Amino acid sequence: MRLLLISNSTNAGEAYLEYPKYEIQKFLANVKEVLFIPYAGVTLTWDDYQARVESRFAEIGIQVKSIHHCANPVQAVYDAQAIVVGGGNTFNLLKTMQDNGLIAPIRAKVSGGTPYVGWSAGSNMACPTLCTTNDMPIVEPQSFKALGLIPFQINPHYLDAHPDGHAGETREQRINEFTQANKGTKVAGLREGCMLLYDNGKLSLIGSRQLRLFEYGKEPLELNAGDDLSVLMQ
Amino acid sequence: MRLLLISNSTNAGEAYLEYPKYEIQKFLANVKEVLFIPYAGVTLTWDDYQARVESRFAEIGIQVKSIHHCANPVQAVYDAQAIVVGGGNTFNLLKTMQDNGLIAPIRAKVSGGTPYVGWSAGSNMACPTLCTTNDMPIVEPQSFKALGLIPFQINPHYLDAHPDGHAGETREQRINEFTQANKGTKVAGLREGCMLLYDNGKLSLIGSRQLRLFEYGKEPLELNAGDDLSVLMQ
Repeated sequence: MRLLLISNSTNAGEAYLEYPKYEIQKFLANVKEVLFIPYAGVTLTWDDYQARVESRFAEIGIQVKSIHHCANPVQAVYDAQAIVVGGGNTFNLLKTMQDNGLIAPIRAKVSGGTPYVGWSAGSNMACPTLCTTNDMPIVEPQSFKALGLIPFQINPHYLDAHPDGHAGETREQRINEFTQANKGTKVAGLREGCMLLYDNGKLSLIGSRQLRLFEYGKEPLELNAGDDLSVLMQ
Repeated sequence: MRLLLISNSTNAGEAYLEYPKYEIQKFLANVKEVLFIPYAGVTLTWDDYQARVESRFAEIGIQVKSIHHCANPVQAVYDAQAIVVGGGNTFNLLKTMQDNGLIAPIRAKVSGGTPYVGWSAGSNMACPTLCTTNDMPIVEPQSFKALGLIPFQINPHYLDAHPDGHAGETREQRINEFTQANKGTKVAGLREGCMLLYDNGKLSLIGSRQLRLFEYGKEPLELNAGDDLSVLMQ
C-alpha cells in the first residue's frame, strides 16, 4: 500500500498546493492521470476545485479527472491510476463518499497498491474514522467510519497556538478528549507544512516540524523526520 | 418556554461560571434545586463536574442534583424544577442524552415551562442539531438531532481571532459552510461573555459584545443587546 497524507494544502502566504507539489510528483512517478475527489468542497464549487487542482498538477505533468464528472463513480475508482482526495469539510466529504458507495471500492483499490494522496480532510479519510477532524459537522454522514487504511488517527492542521483571551478548548485538550473516549487509538498531530508517507511497509514524516503523538495515559511525544514511526502502525 | 443559553462557562482569567452567576440567579428565581446534566464532561469526571457546579450554585442558593446519580434519569427529568446542561464535548453530551432516552422527555418538559439553562455544549443542545458545535467528534451520536427548542443554531464561543500564520478555516468560514449546506437555517455567533434569554415569548441578548447573525445569501449582521432578535425565532 502507498499513501501520501498531507496536513494542509496551502501554507499561509503561499500558492495553493505549492509546498507539497514536488513530494506529490515523486510519489506519483509514472502516473499520468489521477482520479480527484472534490467532495470536501462546500463553498467552492467542484468545478472550481477541479480547476484549482488541475492547474497545480499540470506543473508536475499529471492530468486530473474529477469524479463528479464520471457517470459511474465506482467504476472510475476501479479504473484509477491514483486517487487524490482534497481538503475542505470532512463531514461533507465522508457523507458524499458514503452516499456514492465509494468507501469499500477505494479501500479495496488502495489496499491493492493504487497510490492514494490526501490533504487535510483527504488525510483524515485514510484513518479509521473522521473523529479527529477540526471541521464543523455541517452535514450528518451515514457513520463516522472512514477508509481505515491506517490504524491511527491524524489531526491535520495541528497547532499549538491558541487565541489570547479565548476560553475555548486548545487543540491538545480536544485530542485528549478523543484519547480518553477512544483509549486504544493513537493520534498523530500533523502540523502544517508536514506530511506522512507510507511506502514499502514504512511510515515516514516529511517536513520541518515535529509530529506530536498522543496516546491515552502517556505524555505526548514529539517525533522528527527520520524517527522511527512504526509505533503508529501497530 | 423559558431558556437561558450561555456562550461559555468561564471567561479567560475568571472563576468558573462567575460572569453568568447573577443572570442564572435571576432566571431561576424561586427554584430551590436544579437537575444537572454533566454528560459533556470527558476528561473531567461527572462527580468532579457536579462538585464544580454545586459550589457556584450554592452561592446563589440553589442545590444541584446530578442526573448521573439518579436511578431513573427520565423520571428525574419529569420531576425537575429546572434543567441545567453544562458544557464540554457536544458529541459526548448528545450521544449520552440519546442513549439514556432523554431527548423527548427534556423537550416535553421544557416546552411545558420548566426553565432550561445551558452553556457552551448545553446551549447547542437547545438548537435543532449539534451542527454548529466547535467540538471534535470524538464519539458518534445516534443522530445529529438535538432538542430543537429554538429554530436557529447557536455557535458558542464565537470568535473573530485566528492564529497568525495558520491556514485552517476561520470560524466565519466554517459557519458559511454550514449555511451553504443548510440554506434555511440561521446561525447566531454568540461571543464569549454573552447569553441569550428567551422568556415571555421574547428573545434577548445579554452581554457587552455583539451577536453575529449568519444567514445564507446575506451579509452577516451584528446585533446588540436591546436589538430586536425576533428574526431568529422565525
